[in-house]
Amino acid sequence: MRKIGVLTSGGDAPGMNAAIRAVVRKAIFHGLEVAGIKRGYTGLISGDIVPMDLGSVGDIIHRGGTILQTARCDEFRSEAGQDKAVAKIKEHGIDGLVVIGGDGSFRGARILSDKGIPTIGIPGTIDNDIPCTDYTIGFDTAVNTVVEAVDKIRDTATSHERTYVIEVMGRNAGDIALLAGVACGAENVLVPEAKYDIAAIVEKLKRGAARGKKHSLILVAEGAGKGFAIGEVIRELTGWDTRVTVLGHIQRGGSPTAFDRMLASKMGAKAVDLLIEGDQAKMIGVQGGKVTATDINEALCTPRSPDMTLYELAGVLSI
Amino acid sequence: MRKIGVLTSGGDAPGMNAAIRAVVRKAIFHGLEVAGIKRGYTGLISGDIVPMDLGSVGDIIHRGGTILQTARCDEFRSEAGQDKAVAKIKEHGIDGLVVIGGDGSFRGARILSDKGIPTIGIPGTIDNDIPCTDYTIGFDTAVNTVVEAVDKIRDTATSHERTYVIEVMGRNAGDIALLAGVACGAENVLVPEAKYDIAAIVEKLKRGAARGKKHSLILVAEGAGKGFAIGEVIRELTGWDTRVTVLGHIQRGGSPTAFDRMLASKMGAKAVDLLIEGDQAKMIGVQGGKVTATDINEALCTPRSPDMTLYELAGVLSI
Amino acid sequence: MRKIGVLTSGGDAPGMNAAIRAVVRKAIFHGLEVAGIKRGYTGLISGDIVPMDLGSVGDIIHRGGTILQTARCDEFRSEAGQDKAVAKIKEHGIDGLVVIGGDGSFRGARILSDKGIPTIGIPGTIDNDIPCTDYTIGFDTAVNTVVEAVDKIRDTATSHERTYVIEVMGRNAGDIALLAGVACGAENVLVPEAKYDIAAIVEKLKRGAARGKKHSLILVAEGAGKGFAIGEVIRELTGWDTRVTVLGHIQRGGSPTAFDRMLASKMGAKAVDLLIEGDQAKMIGVQGGKVTATDINEALCTPRSPDMTLYELAGVLSI
Amino acid sequence: MRKIGVLTSGGDAPGMNAAIRAVVRKAIFHGLEVAGIKRGYTGLISGDIVPMDLGSVGDIIHRGGTILQTARCDEFRSEAGQDKAVAKIKEHGIDGLVVIGGDGSFRGARILSDKGIPTIGIPGTIDNDIPCTDYTIGFDTAVNTVVEAVDKIRDTATSHERTYVIEVMGRNAGDIALLAGVACGAENVLVPEAKYDIAAIVEKLKRGAARGKKHSLILVAEGAGKGFAIGEVIRELTGWDTRVTVLGHIQRGGSPTAFDRMLASKMGAKAVDLLIEGDQAKMIGVQGGKVTATDINEALCTPRSPDMTLYELAGVLSI
Repeated sequence: MRKIGVLTSGGDAPGMNAAIRAVVRKAIFHGLEVAGIKRGYTGLISGDIVPMDLGSVGDIIHRGGTILQTARCDEFRSEAGQDKAVAKIKEHGIDGLVVIGGDGSFRGARILSDKGIPTIGIPGTIDNDIPCTDYTIGFDTAVNTVVEAVDKIRDTATSHERTYVIEVMGRNAGDIALLAGVACGAENVLVPEAKYDIAAIVEKLKRGAARGKKHSLILVAEGAGKGFAIGEVIRELTGWDTRVTVLGHIQRGGSPTAFDRMLASKMGAKAVDLLIEGDQAKMIGVQGGKVTATDINEALCTPRSPDMTLYELAGVLSI
Repeated sequence: MRKIGVLTSGGDAPGMNAAIRAVVRKAIFHGLEVAGIKRGYTGLISGDIVPMDLGSVGDIIHRGGTILQTARCDEFRSEAGQDKAVAKIKEHGIDGLVVIGGDGSFRGARILSDKGIPTIGIPGTIDNDIPCTDYTIGFDTAVNTVVEAVDKIRDTATSHERTYVIEVMGRNAGDIALLAGVACGAENVLVPEAKYDIAAIVEKLKRGAARGKKHSLILVAEGAGKGFAIGEVIRELTGWDTRVTVLGHIQRGGSPTAFDRMLASKMGAKAVDLLIEGDQAKMIGVQGGKVTATDINEALCTPRSPDMTLYELAGVLSI
Repeated sequence: MRKIGVLTSGGDAPGMNAAIRAVVRKAIFHGLEVAGIKRGYTGLISGDIVPMDLGSVGDIIHRGGTILQTARCDEFRSEAGQDKAVAKIKEHGIDGLVVIGGDGSFRGARILSDKGIPTIGIPGTIDNDIPCTDYTIGFDTAVNTVVEAVDKIRDTATSHERTYVIEVMGRNAGDIALLAGVACGAENVLVPEAKYDIAAIVEKLKRGAARGKKHSLILVAEGAGKGFAIGEVIRELTGWDTRVTVLGHIQRGGSPTAFDRMLASKMGAKAVDLLIEGDQAKMIGVQGGKVTATDINEALCTPRSPDMTLYELAGVLSI
Repeated sequence: MRKIGVLTSGGDAPGMNAAIRAVVRKAIFHGLEVAGIKRGYTGLISGDIVPMDLGSVGDIIHRGGTILQTARCDEFRSEAGQDKAVAKIKEHGIDGLVVIGGDGSFRGARILSDKGIPTIGIPGTIDNDIPCTDYTIGFDTAVNTVVEAVDKIRDTATSHERTYVIEVMGRNAGDIALLAGVACGAENVLVPEAKYDIAAIVEKLKRGAARGKKHSLILVAEGAGKGFAIGEVIRELTGWDTRVTVLGHIQRGGSPTAFDRMLASKMGAKAVDLLIEGDQAKMIGVQGGKVTATDINEALCTPRSPDMTLYELAGVLSI
């Protein structure tokens, strides 16, 4: 192993820059060269590859987004595209690769490993929808962004005694909604992993109102339904002034939290260690507080769900 | 003047609590009693009125929303409702009233003054759509909330080289969009006070992209059009991945900025001064850095628009 | 178990309110009554005890500090004081107690359990200096507060090409300095758990400067030395303009992060579960991602230190 | 006027980057070239001068500090140094200069104008200690940074019922302390522009405590005294647990507020307009809401003080 490459792929997530920095610095610490690949697999195929030194990752640990940028790459789905990528990797003398991204990115990492390029995946996505890791890079920041937004909406909800429905990101996973829901004391949290009954939700809202609650907050994971549709139903069933906010792309940005910077730093360092040890086709995770490495095949096949005891807890604490 | 009442009305705005605090403390400083009226004109009609002392406004200066709450009141639109309000005011021994809110609230203030209750209006709304004042309470906070949100979206826009359309509040006024647009360096700002040409906007976006700009941000005031519709047009004309975010109710909340707390403190104190001096039917403003008092009739008839030199400046600085 | 009491003791920490809320709501969910004890053991001795219902913990989950307040209590160190406390507990019909605080508070919890009052401890302190738990309530918020402050100092450090020494809290523990140091990419982190050599630190600073680094940040845990003294030494050895900031009490405040609200919610609920099950003299922790209960005697005797692999990581990533 | 230069000098301030961006973009809009001078007058003398285009100020409007960096320059105090600077300016074909900084920087601007280089000053300093302008760039951000810090300290002050003394920046001016003091509802604000009587302050603190105030906050401008000394006196006179925090360098950093970005954008654009019109030796200000230009000589001779009616207001509202 003399030179490793690093790329970010899929949706961007806060903390990706901290992971890039860790990969670059750890590799240089061990005497390796580092190549930065721009725009994910797109730049890999087109050879948009630049050398990276200690200074090229200076002053980025606190920045959202990814300095290597990211893009969707249809061409890489074909074997022809994959072979082009392998050719570019060899052309640039890259002996091993670190891919930071979500499950789509990991499929690419497995393919490259199969084709003889040792590749390690680091889970970087706000959605926390990757098995074999308790947390993905960007998730903690996204949850805190949602919590801060809901805290602001709470001000206006209290002033007007209104019901607010807030739709948050997460693709098919309810993790963002669930953690933010507990953290904000939301009256109801709707996630794709659990069935919900609008009538029961309305019943609970009415009980709260009868008890004197000045506002009600309902968090909806995008995988569980459309905020506007749910708001409309609640409005009809209660006759209350019910407002809907779709939080949108602010959830992808922002300076990463300490937790995400730490997670990214540990994972980036571990990925370089694995490559140096001759390992490949692994996904880095953090499980039970320890940094782990799982076979990517296994990771891609393992079912996952958020900690559903939190779902019960959310219910108990918002009675 | 022995007892004054204070209420908040219309949409809530960050800094309303600082204004309430200033009214209460200034009045008590001058030996007056203060009555807090809950839920705006609704609580005035129903007599939901509580005594306020120094402690009842302790530890609220930094909180968003309004501890007196606010509500829309259809009954107050009728003369019967207005007479009930006057009766309640007299029943509670209230000699003068401070109304914190927007233009609808000021119409109520004028009516009460006409019916013999000296009433002073304080402009509290995030929209900055009140004539005869350079700033309304809550506007600076809302602009900063938008700026922070757009800064987050910028992270993800840069990472993906995307175009983002961001719809912000402001009712019929473009002030929030305009100031936030200049402050964020948005490529385009769409406000109801100026015509815009989507073709020219697209032309500018293409010029920027050709020059190597990694993202484009377009701020749309809700009075100027629907973000989703504008995003759709841009997507069609450019073929680019164009994303839309409607910032929504986070713009009404949050801890008020220093500017808004200061503005609210000055305005609240001034309103009490005017009542003590026997004045009425005035609206407090701040113009050219000075706290002013304008006849409410005049304020309600004066046309206003944001500082359109900013509109030109936004264009020049985002070339 | 029909009625439980809850108090906060020692230094306050963000998230204590979320823990109080969880204790109160979980207890009421199970049909128990709850008594809130003001000012820690001081209020326990004086009988400053109030009933708490669902509404008394409404709208507090996002607030820093503790609504029950906290105080140091010398009287409770004497057996006479402890007996007074037991008498008050019985007088108020309290069958079990939850104590939220640091190690001093836990010693009190053990004493009360020994005297027949089942008591459970929840670790609430920004310092993270409690054994048998990976995290204490308030630690994540404090680290993020430090990280945000250091990010601001970085702006001015870069502009002036200066060296900054930043002293942070933590009592005898280096955890805050260590995690914030990694998260900020500090060039050096000084913690009480590791010896440091100022000459080596200065050598590293000079290497960085030679390589073109525009600033250097040194984080000092208060247990490892005085920031001003260390700054003075660096100034002498380098001749550089070296500035020192002691972050101070901002580290104790602020709205708790999502992580701390979640941690506090889980721990509060668990404490009530234990009391209902007839348990006592336990300390709640979170270890390897799971909520745990450890005998308080064991917890008080177990040595602890931060994860020192982070210390090495900090060194590697800031080369 | 074919080419203008721009530099930042003195202490850095949030918003300086927005001012640089405005100067560069406005100049290019009018067909001028722009040279960026690094490290203030130091880089001017050494010729550390780089060409700036539209892209070189992209993505900086939201960043604290100054991309041009700043430094103190003793050499520029001598006529020899000044002549070197003039020679470098001519060597680089710079026809006019914009200097962003404080009063020291303006003295330099006057000297350069006297020596035939048309120079315009823009007030950039967090201290707001420049005459002939209501606000300097960075002041609003610094005040908000102080307000956010004090809001955090308030949490812990309330929890412990303690008195906190908080020392803030401002050099010889009390503006930061005064505005932040009003905005935080501080019980006392100590500024260099007004005498204070510690005995009266203590009297007020005791009155508040007797009335049930849970905390007291005292803001001290660094020009008015040392926080630690004042804390010590209060501790002696009251016997209370009195804590002191010196906020330090966080006050210089952070992403600029919308207000500062706007102010910087307007001032930067105006400076270029003046140079194009053939003007020189002027200082840009904002007075009564209008952008103004004042002769630098006049500005340097005009006495200034903060709005002392705020000082009275602070007293009235914190009774």
